[in-house]
Amino acid sequence: MFKIFSVKTGAQASFSDITPQVAAVVSASKIGEGICVVTVPHTTAGLTVNENADPSVQEDIITALDKLVPVRGPYRHSEGNSHAHVKSSLLGHSHILHVSGGSLKLGTWQGIFLCEFDGPRTREVHVSVIPA
Amino acid sequence: MFKIFSVKTGAQASFSDITPQVAAVVSASKIGEGICVVTVPHTTAGLTVNENADPSVQEDIITALDKLVPVRGPYRHSEGNSHAHVKSSLLGHSHILHVSGGSLKLGTWQGIFLCEFDGPRTREVHVSVIPA
Amino acid sequence: MFKIFSVKTGAQASFSDITPQVAAVVSASKIGEGICVVTVPHTTAGLTVNENADPSVQEDIITALDKLVPVRGPYRHSEGNSHAHVKSSLLGHSHILHVSGGSLKLGTWQGIFLCEFDGPRTREVHVSVIPA
Repeated sequence: MFKIFSVKTGAQASFSDITPQVAAVVSASKIGEGICVVTVPHTTAGLTVNENADPSVQEDIITALDKLVPVRGPYRHSEGNSHAHVKSSLLGHSHILHVSGGSLKLGTWQGIFLCEFDGPRTREVHVSVIPA
Repeated sequence: MFKIFSVKTGAQASFSDITPQVAAVVSASKIGEGICVVTVPHTTAGLTVNENADPSVQEDIITALDKLVPVRGPYRHSEGNSHAHVKSSLLGHSHILHVSGGSLKLGTWQGIFLCEFDGPRTREVHVSVIPA
Repeated sequence: MFKIFSVKTGAQASFSDITPQVAAVVSASKIGEGICVVTVPHTTAGLTVNENADPSVQEDIITALDKLVPVRGPYRHSEGNSHAHVKSSLLGHSHILHVSGGSLKLGTWQGIFLCEFDGPRTREVHVSVIPA
């Protein structure tokens, strides 16, 4: 079961909660026990699993990353989005989740986020489910 | 083979070596060749694979992360643990390891660590083993 | 399908594009649909997936990481490579990629890089392919 879906990101830097779309792929796979692999085919966006309850957590993560890797700086890459490449590598382009009882085994406060650092754009998310 | 075990963390920020518990799940699975997936269902803790010989490496990682993302700061999230959410995203909530010959294929100096950033607490670790 | 290959890194900090070697393992596995898992058995090197077109992106990532975690600092670990341990944890020792139609499902601009932070050395890369 390998699926691709698209996400329209809303700002230069923004997190999009993709948990419902990933959960739908798991559900459609009818796989009870296994793992779910999520990747993005992009180099200026990433993925993270973090709190989905209070949106200010997402803002704090974006702000903290901006302090660590400022949008403007003495970068060599000439496209003006070097900071986004660095942030993508810091969070990673792939994440893996457990599937048990036919559902994603996320913690109470966990959601899966597409992390946009060079938007707004339309991004792709790749999801597969592998049986145990 | 999907198992959950608990870890009591000892300080606000601390690394717990969970290699023996993960290795025990691999052993019990009787899977010779495949992969082992480790995740935490938490948003203020993470996982890393790093040196398990000299404990000062763990201290250096904790100190470096504290410099990058200070415990106190002008964060928006009101629970006082925003730094822990950011650190969790920087290290990641999931890791994957190779299994070959019925054992974890770790390097000589590698151990698997639960990284606590908002403790002490009792944390859960989720482990599965997938055959190749 | 589990394979190990070696990479000679060229500098203290450098990225080596290992996409061809990983793609060769996927091809040899004859697995059409599944996932490819890449790990390094090292604690002062890591892996990332990022742009393989303009090499200045790799330089920008290395420079950004050096600013965040300086080579020299008041570290406790006495081997002088604490910064490399921290960078390894920030990027991660494992990555996962989708395999579809018998090939790695990488984005147009994505390559897989071994990230050396304590070289030059000969490093190992572990690759496996798991069917869906």
